[in-house]
Amino acid sequence: MSEILRSQIERITPLTDKEFEYILSHFTIRKLKKHQYLIQEGDFVQNDHFVTKGLLKAYYVNQDGKEHIMQFAMEDWWITDYQAYFNETKSILNIDCIEATEVLCLSLYNREKLCADMHKIEHFFRKKSNSGYMALQRRILSFLNSNAKERYEQLRENYPILFQRVPKTLIASYLGVSRETLSRLSS
Amino acid sequence: MSEILRSQIERITPLTDKEFEYILSHFTIRKLKKHQYLIQEGDFVQNDHFVTKGLLKAYYVNQDGKEHIMQFAMEDWWITDYQAYFNETKSILNIDCIEATEVLCLSLYNREKLCADMHKIEHFFRKKSNSGYMALQRRILSFLNSNAKERYEQLRENYPILFQRVPKTLIASYLGVSRETLSRLSS
Repeated sequence: MSEILRSQIERITPLTDKEFEYILSHFTIRKLKKHQYLIQEGDFVQNDHFVTKGLLKAYYVNQDGKEHIMQFAMEDWWITDYQAYFNETKSILNIDCIEATEVLCLSLYNREKLCADMHKIEHFFRKKSNSGYMALQRRILSFLNSNAKERYEQLRENYPILFQRVPKTLIASYLGVSRETLSRLSS
Repeated sequence: MSEILRSQIERITPLTDKEFEYILSHFTIRKLKKHQYLIQEGDFVQNDHFVTKGLLKAYYVNQDGKEHIMQFAMEDWWITDYQAYFNETKSILNIDCIEATEVLCLSLYNREKLCADMHKIEHFFRKKSNSGYMALQRRILSFLNSNAKERYEQLRENYPILFQRVPKTLIASYLGVSRETLSRLSS
């Protein structure tokens, strides 16, 4: 399973077997069943998670109990509550498994250690962070500017696989529209 | 003016005079008058910009000519169209000056060169990118969850200085509310 991580890093910087072994020794494996929580609101967030198998959602529950989906993650994606992880504070998000899931966990201590030890890993994480920043900017622009139909079409164009694996109720929550609106859009 | 840049970097990693001189040699200075454009929609984006003086706004104009403000930037902040900058494509944003402005410009080529030459600069930019990512996540959560009054209060709490320097019409555009709604909120 760890080969997915190696390919992701090697799309940015080449690695020797020894280097990858060293990197991998900083991760731990965690397996979760469908519906199990990876992180619950109020937890201290120990790890960032690289998904080797499965599908998860990160969401915020507001005071009225309404769920707002922040992000999905499947194989080859990273997921955690980044505010809580980087600031070493309690999570305001919940992350649970839409499918049975396996993740590689990286603590903040090990991330910083790897980045300090290996310039090329610092480079890798800088590039990943830049990509993440751009993806969030696109999402903000879509909130500011697009209507529900456009947001739906952008999502289907960028992440067609989500539509095969994620229930429609959750897609609606991600887009910030009702289940009924989504049905109308997708018909 | 470049001392602001040095302090920002040194909040993350210490520098010798020689190192800072070397870093600074990769930047160029640009001065702009009030209302002048730093970037116009459709331009190829050559540079990221560190603000040493002044105040700018980055905004998207939709098909109906409506402006949506993506970000403000003042002294000690960075601003560009990051999608266009990192992907070397044309800008979809406009960036112009709310006040007379001075920026230090860093090309993508020079950014990558500095990061490759100096591990500590790669570290600095990774940390900055992480902070930027967290700020955008907070903004997305506020769109998904908060009402206009809460968004207004969050902004006033996090960036009080904006309310002294930025016209209310622009604050309203950033929050995605009408000028009338903003007047009601701020009264």
